[in-house]
Amino acid sequence: MTPQPKPEDRFSFGLWTVGWTARDMFGEATRPPLDPVEAVHRLAELGAYGITFHDDDLVPFGSSDGDRAKIITSFKKALDETGLVVPMVTTNTFFHPVFKDGAFTANDRSVRRFALRKILRNLDLGAELGARTFVFWGGREGAESHAGKDVRAALDRYREGLDLLAQYVEDQGYGLRFAIEPKPNEPRGDILLPTVGHALAFIETLEHRDMVGVNPEVGHEQMAGLNFAHGIAQALWQGKLFHIDLNGQTGPRFDQDLIFGHGDLLNAFALVDLLENGGPSGGPAYDGPRHFDYKPARTEDREGVWASAAANMETYLLLKERAAEFRADPAVHEALEASKVAELSVPTLTDTESYADLLRDRSAFEDFGPDAAGHPGYGYAHLNQLAVRHLIGVGK
Amino acid sequence: MTPQPKPEDRFSFGLWTVGWTARDMFGEATRPPLDPVEAVHRLAELGAYGITFHDDDLVPFGSSDGDRAKIITSFKKALDETGLVVPMVTTNTFFHPVFKDGAFTANDRSVRRFALRKILRNLDLGAELGARTFVFWGGREGAESHAGKDVRAALDRYREGLDLLAQYVEDQGYGLRFAIEPKPNEPRGDILLPTVGHALAFIETLEHRDMVGVNPEVGHEQMAGLNFAHGIAQALWQGKLFHIDLNGQTGPRFDQDLIFGHGDLLNAFALVDLLENGGPSGGPAYDGPRHFDYKPARTEDREGVWASAAANMETYLLLKERAAEFRADPAVHEALEASKVAELSVPTLTDTESYADLLRDRSAFEDFGPDAAGHPGYGYAHLNQLAVRHLIGVGK
Amino acid sequence: MTPQPKPEDRFSFGLWTVGWTARDMFGEATRPPLDPVEAVHRLAELGAYGITFHDDDLVPFGSSDGDRAKIITSFKKALDETGLVVPMVTTNTFFHPVFKDGAFTANDRSVRRFALRKILRNLDLGAELGARTFVFWGGREGAESHAGKDVRAALDRYREGLDLLAQYVEDQGYGLRFAIEPKPNEPRGDILLPTVGHALAFIETLEHRDMVGVNPEVGHEQMAGLNFAHGIAQALWQGKLFHIDLNGQTGPRFDQDLIFGHGDLLNAFALVDLLENGGPSGGPAYDGPRHFDYKPARTEDREGVWASAAANMETYLLLKERAAEFRADPAVHEALEASKVAELSVPTLTDTESYADLLRDRSAFEDFGPDAAGHPGYGYAHLNQLAVRHLIGVGK
Amino acid sequence: MTPQPKPEDRFSFGLWTVGWTARDMFGEATRPPLDPVEAVHRLAELGAYGITFHDDDLVPFGSSDGDRAKIITSFKKALDETGLVVPMVTTNTFFHPVFKDGAFTANDRSVRRFALRKILRNLDLGAELGARTFVFWGGREGAESHAGKDVRAALDRYREGLDLLAQYVEDQGYGLRFAIEPKPNEPRGDILLPTVGHALAFIETLEHRDMVGVNPEVGHEQMAGLNFAHGIAQALWQGKLFHIDLNGQTGPRFDQDLIFGHGDLLNAFALVDLLENGGPSGGPAYDGPRHFDYKPARTEDREGVWASAAANMETYLLLKERAAEFRADPAVHEALEASKVAELSVPTLTDTESYADLLRDRSAFEDFGPDAAGHPGYGYAHLNQLAVRHLIGVGK
Repeated sequence: MTPQPKPEDRFSFGLWTVGWTARDMFGEATRPPLDPVEAVHRLAELGAYGITFHDDDLVPFGSSDGDRAKIITSFKKALDETGLVVPMVTTNTFFHPVFKDGAFTANDRSVRRFALRKILRNLDLGAELGARTFVFWGGREGAESHAGKDVRAALDRYREGLDLLAQYVEDQGYGLRFAIEPKPNEPRGDILLPTVGHALAFIETLEHRDMVGVNPEVGHEQMAGLNFAHGIAQALWQGKLFHIDLNGQTGPRFDQDLIFGHGDLLNAFALVDLLENGGPSGGPAYDGPRHFDYKPARTEDREGVWASAAANMETYLLLKERAAEFRADPAVHEALEASKVAELSVPTLTDTESYADLLRDRSAFEDFGPDAAGHPGYGYAHLNQLAVRHLIGVGK
Repeated sequence: MTPQPKPEDRFSFGLWTVGWTARDMFGEATRPPLDPVEAVHRLAELGAYGITFHDDDLVPFGSSDGDRAKIITSFKKALDETGLVVPMVTTNTFFHPVFKDGAFTANDRSVRRFALRKILRNLDLGAELGARTFVFWGGREGAESHAGKDVRAALDRYREGLDLLAQYVEDQGYGLRFAIEPKPNEPRGDILLPTVGHALAFIETLEHRDMVGVNPEVGHEQMAGLNFAHGIAQALWQGKLFHIDLNGQTGPRFDQDLIFGHGDLLNAFALVDLLENGGPSGGPAYDGPRHFDYKPARTEDREGVWASAAANMETYLLLKERAAEFRADPAVHEALEASKVAELSVPTLTDTESYADLLRDRSAFEDFGPDAAGHPGYGYAHLNQLAVRHLIGVGK
Repeated sequence: MTPQPKPEDRFSFGLWTVGWTARDMFGEATRPPLDPVEAVHRLAELGAYGITFHDDDLVPFGSSDGDRAKIITSFKKALDETGLVVPMVTTNTFFHPVFKDGAFTANDRSVRRFALRKILRNLDLGAELGARTFVFWGGREGAESHAGKDVRAALDRYREGLDLLAQYVEDQGYGLRFAIEPKPNEPRGDILLPTVGHALAFIETLEHRDMVGVNPEVGHEQMAGLNFAHGIAQALWQGKLFHIDLNGQTGPRFDQDLIFGHGDLLNAFALVDLLENGGPSGGPAYDGPRHFDYKPARTEDREGVWASAAANMETYLLLKERAAEFRADPAVHEALEASKVAELSVPTLTDTESYADLLRDRSAFEDFGPDAAGHPGYGYAHLNQLAVRHLIGVGK
Repeated sequence: MTPQPKPEDRFSFGLWTVGWTARDMFGEATRPPLDPVEAVHRLAELGAYGITFHDDDLVPFGSSDGDRAKIITSFKKALDETGLVVPMVTTNTFFHPVFKDGAFTANDRSVRRFALRKILRNLDLGAELGARTFVFWGGREGAESHAGKDVRAALDRYREGLDLLAQYVEDQGYGLRFAIEPKPNEPRGDILLPTVGHALAFIETLEHRDMVGVNPEVGHEQMAGLNFAHGIAQALWQGKLFHIDLNGQTGPRFDQDLIFGHGDLLNAFALVDLLENGGPSGGPAYDGPRHFDYKPARTEDREGVWASAAANMETYLLLKERAAEFRADPAVHEALEASKVAELSVPTLTDTESYADLLRDRSAFEDFGPDAAGHPGYGYAHLNQLAVRHLIGVGK
């Protein structure tokens, strides 16, 4: 029996995911456009609780005010009918040619002003729809030539833009939080704020840094060969995991946006284990939406799209079950003990100890015996094999 | 004519670089050990100004106090004779088996205490030798199994350790600054603080964050497929480029530690241009040591070692010349103008403008005309070709 | 002074390169379509000698026979007016949705039959236009799911298709040779025949293997982290370098199609040195077209497109000059001698020697002294620095 | 219950794997040397059927003839006592400094002669011990500088060496087959014959090509970002999968040599499914040893070494069970049918059809209707999710 997704699982999908028409770099669309209203209904039927969108996913770029209003009304109606919520909204600042050199960081100042206005308008819409998180993916904020982009000036402008938008949100009392989504490259040769780390560092320079966190995407970090679960752990540690994008990727190559788990399955297992069981008391470490940002393969028709949407949730739930079994297994407890995992939570110095005390402690250095201390094994091979066993379903 | 390195160029080398005996993962040493005193003399003759070391490079692990004193004395004598300085010192917390699970973040608490003591001792030596920067490369702070390392606890311990050491340095009045050197992997499967970004973010959580910056290494960032010059620009922007490790790498693969420029030469050019000409007024953006952290290839004998050391400096100086020519070329000025590079330094809003003003500015949105604004090209192809021309030496 | 391209340099461009409208995975076209006739004229003015195309680049998919004839006539007229030739033609078997699962290797047999017919038609056109090489890039021959594609059956079908087409060409007396273009991934998750090596191996199984070679592309091999110049050397060694695609790439990531030299410049230098000076007597090792398969950046307008086209040729010619200087430099000769480079061309056994003789030669083993033989350095660091010097333009 | 390995599973281990003392690029050995006799006994107890070795793993380089004989005698005794066999032997031509520039392809001819002698001697030993496969891993056959290694001359020498050795084996009637093990890089910057494809292509140039195949290693191909199961499928298709090295890797980075399945688990599942169920009639596609070439992590002590050895076999057997369940599942059969997987085994032309017939078949082109034919989905998302389900253990 495979588990069935329910709204309390908090699964959400981008409208642009199930709605992707499968036009790619080397090929024409293989699927017709999807009506947002249909997307809402189908996702609700599949057990999702939320839907998210870029402004232009819902309201085509350049629509008249009248058309815009009509679209939003029918979308809201679908939400009402299904109970689906809009936990997150984001702005498309990459598709139209005007953004070809970026939005916050385009060399052309008039483009930057236009971008801010486009985002401001979408903040209003996000607030109106009850979104709690507003994501910024700066896909065009980057460069292919070193001299054409003054990176420090670009970071100044990035900061200026986010400071302004944060002030607006605060003044309006929108209750939105911002989440920056890093990516190392594609479509630009190199993108600014390429990893979770760079984004976290940048956030510390913002005026309203408390309301800004990150929205890491599995594939984006793995495109840089980074351990996604480790990046998430640091984001959690810094109190900045505001949202998350789940999908699959097979290492450094183009952005694959595979179904969650259809890439590095072991790291997906580590991730779910962290999100669900990694809190201080063993409970969830993250309570926001489990948001899927994937692309149904170009080989699939509409039916395949919905099968792939369901597959994302199913894999997450299966991994959650396996992770729970892993954490409940006495053999795992024993192995964690043997690997001294909990000992890392014990401070290196005691509460009352100073460095002066440490310097006086001959057992720490003069009498320590590093050679002998280097002999015992940490037992990680066994511990990791227990994880593999549980993942494969023989651990129970 | 190739340029000759001079002390005012501030070139420095790790003792472990020219001293590497070329023992690698799949082979025995091909060169005999190098006497540190000889290293000092040879580097001075080649035009370097500084030498750096891990404690164990200079004083073998486990030496008696007497031997240690003798070694340090003769090393100082060589420094005196040559005028070479020790701008940076670092601690080896990765070679001995005791550190196989890390130093700051080993699960075994006694190992962490030993590591702190080893570093404290080396801080004294660094201060004694006049070093201004103390580097931390946590090569063993990482994991291969997800459950064996509680990453958040590890970051707690990393912070605890650095806070303690920073307090010590401050109390002693050593005047040292700390520089964290990130690396994504190798020797551990995944290393904590894998990129410049992750390290910069982590630093913001430290008690003495002002005295802690980064020591990025060309190859380490390129192992994650990241644009090194971009990473350096962000580090500079955050005021945290405390030191730099120059070498070469060919993308995501094992840590090659090639001669500077013998990897991605165009990015090396961008880097030198940034360091030398990227300051606010066009002057140097970085005034610290140009430190080479490379490995002379295993195929080379002692003569080849010194040829490779010289090659690092020569390439840097050649790129510096080319970058100066690039910045002086009127055609480049014209191209930068056409690409609106300087316009990015103009704030998106005027000094007196608020978001309310921007919202009222119809020219920014309602009357903007994104389609027309998307037409003009940015001229980056031409600008980048000018860089290639200058690099190849036909730009003058 | 930068060198000017001339027809005898044999530079050619894909119509899809300068004609790319810059529609990418995350954005709309930023440039209008380019008339093939204009492309011919502009490329001729810039000094190119050839233009190449996919059938659908020239004649839109689904055109009527009448429209097709008209387009071909006006294209031929432009060729006549300019003297530009069509050295290579290829077929688009990846853009239309019908090819979403491949062409030669689609699971759907009717798609495979349609693909063969499309290619057969284009073979006629290629022959009519005097092309000498017919390229096969199987961008959709691949998979994302392991069970959905029987790779061995796929290779059977790939072979069946190429055997049939080769027989057709032979029977028609077209004088065309086939060239397979490998790529590891994108747009498919994994593409069949992912590298030059896999394609060379596959070719050996073909009925008409003598008329089939490879068309390696710089970026495609570098997406797999491979040394492009090494791959070309093996293709030359196996007598299979029938065509070549020049561009730039920055390691494993999405297919960047940068301007030639705007990626890994040192490897581009090695490549040009090999192509131009690597023949048995020091002359050219390859005498086919120098074909550019790049994409003008999406930030560029039409003027930038032509600037980028010119940049490809300029970089090639600059590297050719530098490589000639490198090969003429007495210091390089000396370094090559010291590195024993020519000694590798001396067979390991003499002409008259058998393994039995080698087994009797005590100097080869019993009296050899591997320790002493392991001491001398190969001097590669110095040799490589000479290459860097020459590339930077200070070697003369 | 986890499955228990048995000799009929044909699991074998390199002596250098369990015997690795964990000396790495950045650290000293953490484990004492392992007596080969103990290795034989422990592996037999764990259920392995074979052990393999490099000459120097068993008999230290430079041992006297007397010591050599003694070691071999005691090793044979251990084999006799346990029933363990030696299915494969290989030669160490990379560890000693004399091989720093390669063995078959060292620029220094005397090194090449020495290497051939070393290998010849080991061929005798391999034959004596009953080995059926002799592996060649040319870890030092490569380069870091483009001009220092004439790649085509190197391939000439590689061929010369293998031709000589193959002739020797044939003349001696040893019944050994050769298997080339490709690797893209590390320890050399770039290694010759970097992938399965390059090796397969090279083999076609050999005099005794029938007795030469490949020994692909999971991690080596994945270091180039290639799909390992795809590469194995091509090797099988070309009749050249003579041996296989199983381990784990996380994409392009240093050679990790993880436990089998502790890297890309989904691809490991695809691999086992191919090896075990991918034959023409659904049976095994490969009947040689399942050879593990991994490194027990440096954090492990001796006990951890044996735990890791057992983990390799356990994971293989678990995946074999899951793959059997996958292939037996009616839902999978249905999905394969929907995806038209078997249709790819139907030739594109009928037995009696010629290209002329195809050209006359209007249903193949003129009346085909590509737009309609492009609509149906291939159902790969569903099929792949069935694989994930089975792998996770809920498919039964």
